[in-house]
Amino acid sequence: MSETVRSLGEAGVLRRIFPRLPAAAGELLGPGDDAAVVAAPDGRVVITTDMMIHGPDFRLAWSSPHDLGWKAAATNLSDIAAMGAVPTALVVAIAAPAETDIGFLEAFADGLRDCCAALAPGCGVVGGDLSVSGTLTIAVTAFGDLEGRDPVLRSGARVGDVVAVSGELGAAGTGLALLFASAPEPDAAAAAALRIEHPRALAAQLTPRPPIADGRAAAIAGATSMLDLSDGLAIDARRIAAASGVGLDLRSDALGDLGPALDGGEDHSLLATFPPGTALPGGFRPLGAVVAGEGVLVDGVPYERPSGWDPYVGWNGAAG
Amino acid sequence: MSETVRSLGEAGVLRRIFPRLPAAAGELLGPGDDAAVVAAPDGRVVITTDMMIHGPDFRLAWSSPHDLGWKAAATNLSDIAAMGAVPTALVVAIAAPAETDIGFLEAFADGLRDCCAALAPGCGVVGGDLSVSGTLTIAVTAFGDLEGRDPVLRSGARVGDVVAVSGELGAAGTGLALLFASAPEPDAAAAAALRIEHPRALAAQLTPRPPIADGRAAAIAGATSMLDLSDGLAIDARRIAAASGVGLDLRSDALGDLGPALDGGEDHSLLATFPPGTALPGGFRPLGAVVAGEGVLVDGVPYERPSGWDPYVGWNGAAG
Repeated sequence: MSETVRSLGEAGVLRRIFPRLPAAAGELLGPGDDAAVVAAPDGRVVITTDMMIHGPDFRLAWSSPHDLGWKAAATNLSDIAAMGAVPTALVVAIAAPAETDIGFLEAFADGLRDCCAALAPGCGVVGGDLSVSGTLTIAVTAFGDLEGRDPVLRSGARVGDVVAVSGELGAAGTGLALLFASAPEPDAAAAAALRIEHPRALAAQLTPRPPIADGRAAAIAGATSMLDLSDGLAIDARRIAAASGVGLDLRSDALGDLGPALDGGEDHSLLATFPPGTALPGGFRPLGAVVAGEGVLVDGVPYERPSGWDPYVGWNGAAG
Repeated sequence: MSETVRSLGEAGVLRRIFPRLPAAAGELLGPGDDAAVVAAPDGRVVITTDMMIHGPDFRLAWSSPHDLGWKAAATNLSDIAAMGAVPTALVVAIAAPAETDIGFLEAFADGLRDCCAALAPGCGVVGGDLSVSGTLTIAVTAFGDLEGRDPVLRSGARVGDVVAVSGELGAAGTGLALLFASAPEPDAAAAAALRIEHPRALAAQLTPRPPIADGRAAAIAGATSMLDLSDGLAIDARRIAAASGVGLDLRSDALGDLGPALDGGEDHSLLATFPPGTALPGGFRPLGAVVAGEGVLVDGVPYERPSGWDPYVGWNGAAG
């Protein structure tokens, strides 16, 4: 007989899940009381929160529960890294249908654990919540330590700075486009075949590996602005431009395939600006320069292609 | 023409919502970047997270959006208070159907604001997330400051301690029972009539006012254990008993109407134990004593009535 959220109850599920989760190095009090207590060594804590909803944000035909745990952790860790901080802890609330099998939630927990171990060693899960809902919903809140440094904001780019990126450009968007093109409705067999045929793009979409450690490295190297690329380079670069009152001029020869690089969402790479002459740290590579003006340019020409990142619009959230 | 989540988009909704939200006194960086930064003056941060799901956790026929914002804040603030901490900040993720009117979200934000102002001045909303979902879902993560004190755990009750409570006992459960009894399905007119007829019980259920400041006061007075009453006194007192390796003997003459007091959920009152002779702080009143043994007793007799807190089971989550 299968064990489900309904048959085990919240307490029973949590007893099975918590032992699988990684402890945080900074955990002073973990799960089991009304709240957790986490170290904030420099007297500040960096906080970000993000939800993933079945339908708009993922399909169960495409993502395994391990993938979902991995991606829920990775996307939140990336927002912490984008401040120049080191991720310290996560809390994870999940709402799942009552008939959800415990094996699904165990694999989800393993995905959280494996992502933290791979991308942010020392970061762990210090608490959570389990609810019943008709719509599988994952809400992660992540915490980080600035180690005494100022946070790296979107507003500090200055004319003459180098624009640089660490991580993939466009692969996650390409992966999603391949998934949408592979079958009229989300289809597990088609997704499995695509993973073999296009491993890099599918991994970028389903199990992203944002360069978490490069957030701290960028801050130490003196980054003047930084953000996590979630909605595509064109949209996100425009955010730095607007917040800083400058333009970002990108070089087409640094971008590769322009369409995916500029308009593909969910890269979770780090876009940053550095003072001229900075030795770019970690995996950062130059993309262009900060210029007087506004918005995003490519080879000096304003990039005006209307772009938005909402590929799931019009899809039936209940399907797949 | 009405303005909805779909017509305004995430950025448009957030522009309307954020100005309504209270700033936190400890906010070092608020909404608008990849993450927020909040002060953690003693080098630690208390963290709790909780989801509210349409169907299992609330009905739109019974709760106004202002009520929902209020309750989402209050229940999380109460978990922070139960550690002996002072609430400093919230992040709030909400997933709502695309056709949700902006007025609904504005009233929800006002409920968050009014609850913080009333129960935890200085606590504010430092960040959030907005998603589209078929199931209205609210995920709040709350933060607190221990002001240099140790957190008050569930495990510190000692034989001879006084058992005490601050806040209502049973009113929230009575309010919910009245709502369920009032009509065969959730009904707004019936709920409105009940609010007039039974204002205290309905307010306890729909807009709880947990004694947030008494958490800090209890810690300062030397409370040996404390928790937030969410699943009913009998279940929650058993948690302190189990964690501390003791029994909690309650006096029937202190409980009032036994059934609701012991088995009514969602009081969000604070149950604590204090060393004998402690002058009970704030709104705390004595309920009994910590004794050798285990579990919960009433007038020395083990209280074994099977009790659980899941009154929505069997109701159709889509209705109301």
